[in-house]
Amino acid sequence: MSDDDEVKKTDQTLAADADAEDGDAAPKEDGPDEDGLEEDGYSLDRRTITAILYAVDTDDREKLVELMEPLHAADIADMLEQINAYDRRRLILLYDKEFDGEILSELGESIREEVISVLKPDVLAEAVRELDSDDVVDLVEYLDEPQQEAILDALPDSERAAVAQALAYPEESAGRLMQREVVAVPEDWNVGQAIDYMREREDLPEQFYHVILTDPRMHPVAHVMLGKLMASRRATLLSDITEPGFRTFEATEDEGDVAYAFNQYHLISAPVVDAEDRLVGVITIDDAMIVLDEEHDEDILRLAGVSEESSLTDRVIDTTKRRFPWLAVNLVTAILASLVIAQFEATIAQFVALAVLMPIVASMGGNAGTQSLTVAVRSIATKDLTGANVWRVIRRECLVGLINGVIFAVVMGIVGLIWFGSPALGYVIAAAMVINLVVAGLAGTMIPVALERVGVDPALASGAFVTTVTDIVGFFAFLGLAGVILL
Amino acid sequence: MSDDDEVKKTDQTLAADADAEDGDAAPKEDGPDEDGLEEDGYSLDRRTITAILYAVDTDDREKLVELMEPLHAADIADMLEQINAYDRRRLILLYDKEFDGEILSELGESIREEVISVLKPDVLAEAVRELDSDDVVDLVEYLDEPQQEAILDALPDSERAAVAQALAYPEESAGRLMQREVVAVPEDWNVGQAIDYMREREDLPEQFYHVILTDPRMHPVAHVMLGKLMASRRATLLSDITEPGFRTFEATEDEGDVAYAFNQYHLISAPVVDAEDRLVGVITIDDAMIVLDEEHDEDILRLAGVSEESSLTDRVIDTTKRRFPWLAVNLVTAILASLVIAQFEATIAQFVALAVLMPIVASMGGNAGTQSLTVAVRSIATKDLTGANVWRVIRRECLVGLINGVIFAVVMGIVGLIWFGSPALGYVIAAAMVINLVVAGLAGTMIPVALERVGVDPALASGAFVTTVTDIVGFFAFLGLAGVILL
Repeated sequence: MSDDDEVKKTDQTLAADADAEDGDAAPKEDGPDEDGLEEDGYSLDRRTITAILYAVDTDDREKLVELMEPLHAADIADMLEQINAYDRRRLILLYDKEFDGEILSELGESIREEVISVLKPDVLAEAVRELDSDDVVDLVEYLDEPQQEAILDALPDSERAAVAQALAYPEESAGRLMQREVVAVPEDWNVGQAIDYMREREDLPEQFYHVILTDPRMHPVAHVMLGKLMASRRATLLSDITEPGFRTFEATEDEGDVAYAFNQYHLISAPVVDAEDRLVGVITIDDAMIVLDEEHDEDILRLAGVSEESSLTDRVIDTTKRRFPWLAVNLVTAILASLVIAQFEATIAQFVALAVLMPIVASMGGNAGTQSLTVAVRSIATKDLTGANVWRVIRRECLVGLINGVIFAVVMGIVGLIWFGSPALGYVIAAAMVINLVVAGLAGTMIPVALERVGVDPALASGAFVTTVTDIVGFFAFLGLAGVILL
Repeated sequence: MSDDDEVKKTDQTLAADADAEDGDAAPKEDGPDEDGLEEDGYSLDRRTITAILYAVDTDDREKLVELMEPLHAADIADMLEQINAYDRRRLILLYDKEFDGEILSELGESIREEVISVLKPDVLAEAVRELDSDDVVDLVEYLDEPQQEAILDALPDSERAAVAQALAYPEESAGRLMQREVVAVPEDWNVGQAIDYMREREDLPEQFYHVILTDPRMHPVAHVMLGKLMASRRATLLSDITEPGFRTFEATEDEGDVAYAFNQYHLISAPVVDAEDRLVGVITIDDAMIVLDEEHDEDILRLAGVSEESSLTDRVIDTTKRRFPWLAVNLVTAILASLVIAQFEATIAQFVALAVLMPIVASMGGNAGTQSLTVAVRSIATKDLTGANVWRVIRRECLVGLINGVIFAVVMGIVGLIWFGSPALGYVIAAAMVINLVVAGLAGTMIPVALERVGVDPALASGAFVTTVTDIVGFFAFLGLAGVILL
């Protein structure tokens, strides 16, 4: 039975991968490499998914649980996102009570809603009760009202209150991101007191890296790394072993700014304070990493004209709506460019070669502009492009455009000459190329900087403006010069 | 003296920002918001830079040190990157012995080389000696031979050996990323033994989050979080409080795969092992975060056709070279598209309106294709697009293309009719629009997937292929249909 063999093999692979005591724990060598997409062995391999779907098809609950047990919640979530809705529903119903709350946390939004609606109420309640309050917040914040209530109702009173309080902070704020469980001690304690306190406390958070020192009014004033605490004598004052570079965040602060600070200053955890600077929670680097990852994704998608969060599991109609606005903007700008061409209809009618060559000039300008604007948008996001160096950068981009422009002008001049046998046409396209590539460098830098200054996200809007400029300048320079020189 | 006032104000702002004991520590409200680029107050503000440059101009070392003292090394590095080479040189020479090794770590490559060449040998040696061995590795790995040797010579023998050993691992591998200082204890110890061991050890790493348990052959088998250690009684066996989801990485593994695993499985730290599975180091989440950030940057830049690492501080000639290949590829593809147009010269000559409208069809296809390919490239990178769902995703993208295609077909049909008064022209452009947007969805998904399967980075190469397809299909469909219907 080849089918069975395959299932067994997959199973062993996963066991080796998950079993820490196994001598061969390095996942690299265990991962199957079947279709090139899973070459590093971390993601689920196709055979596991096939085996799981086979267990679902044959209604074999025992086998399904056995196959799923070694998988990380993040991988289970990925698998649920990759299979179709019909299989997903059957899998969830068969898996039943084994369904873990963490899987919900790992799911993308659209699939998450679907999965919640499929889960039986008691399974959902049990799954949610396992989660920390900050994970519940993350889970429910974008759900519909009825689903949100179903989950909140499953929580014990104290936790429900904590979640409600977190939801009172603005969306995408530090307050939503933080965990409320903190380890804080008075600033005048010594190491021994802090260790005894932690030994006695029943509800220490799952993960924490610093002990926060607070003054009598609960203002965080410094923090001590656990490793340093471990290494110090009991009599050592905590205030003598605090970390440099301590900083706090306000609960209303944007999570993107928090993530930027974690990345820029290599923070591991940082306290969150309310408007009166009192300690209300703590943000850890793993939360910041997730935000950073999301922001990067948004940046990439925005640069490509895909607005809002977007994933493969969104419904067709949602995806269509998300792609529409940018295409609509592009249609308007393309028509603008066409209006420029229309001014030269008479020229084109006399010299059809112009129609053949004009897209080349526009296309080169568009690509050079996209290069410049992408570098500019990234540099603005990482705060490397500021008022202090903007003019130097613009000069530099124009110079790069000029050099590449001249090279491609020579190439295209020769192509134009050979193809159409007209030296004049060669001069025209060469001149237009230089002009358009310099303009591309200029527009590709100035437009994102200008958008940022007026408060518009440069990642979202720069592309449309820059390619409009390069299209219009490209067509105008090429056809205009042609009109003067050729006719 | 308005100049002096400004300096003083900046100084206060920075002090408030850096002073944790200040009641107003939240940086958000303190940050000046002068030109829109620094609205969140984290980055250096312009006034600080101005004040620092004024101190350099007036050769006022005391003032310079006072202004720089509260700044984080990462911010000092950012500032050095933003000012020009002349100011940079004078600043470094004036700052002299205060120059911190961490600033070097935070600098981008091209500026780093320049700064190292400006630093006096004794200042450089002192700066480098302050750094951990993994930071030194990070610092020297891409330097020229002479600069690398200058730095290695400044190190004590033991550390030089450690750095040399790390450099023996492949570039961008886990071995280069890891720190060699680990905290490991035998797997059969209890909490009390571990704590006593740490108390006694002199050279605990600056940052560590787990105590690694090893078997007698130094194979890591599990790890315990420091917080859990703190919370447990001395008699508790370490093996009873280990963390689930323990995994190790091989030293030769690609750092990108390591960063992916940290992000996917929310790891905080993980041991690194050699080919015999023996513990050789540990990677922490902050290292992984930096790699993830770099990889994202690379992805964004590659999608825009900027090859290799690229930053604002590169020399013009390097930037020009980096932009050139993609523009060259684009020239070839643009000429291919022009060859398609050339086939229809006779048609265009009879009906010049076609030349006016044809860029619209190609441009819409190019944009829709870029949307699809960006989503596909991101999904491949995050392993959300795999063999299990590729066909469903392709169907979905084509459907999205069809719906948007029909909408824009109606719009363009009407525009064509009104503008040129020809219903037939309206039909032609409408039909070409639908065809090109469906093809854009198809090509935008299939091309990245196909490139990934044959081992080519889809982020780098997809754009050229997809826009070539949409250009050619766009021109061919529009002009071809026009030739059949209009003439």
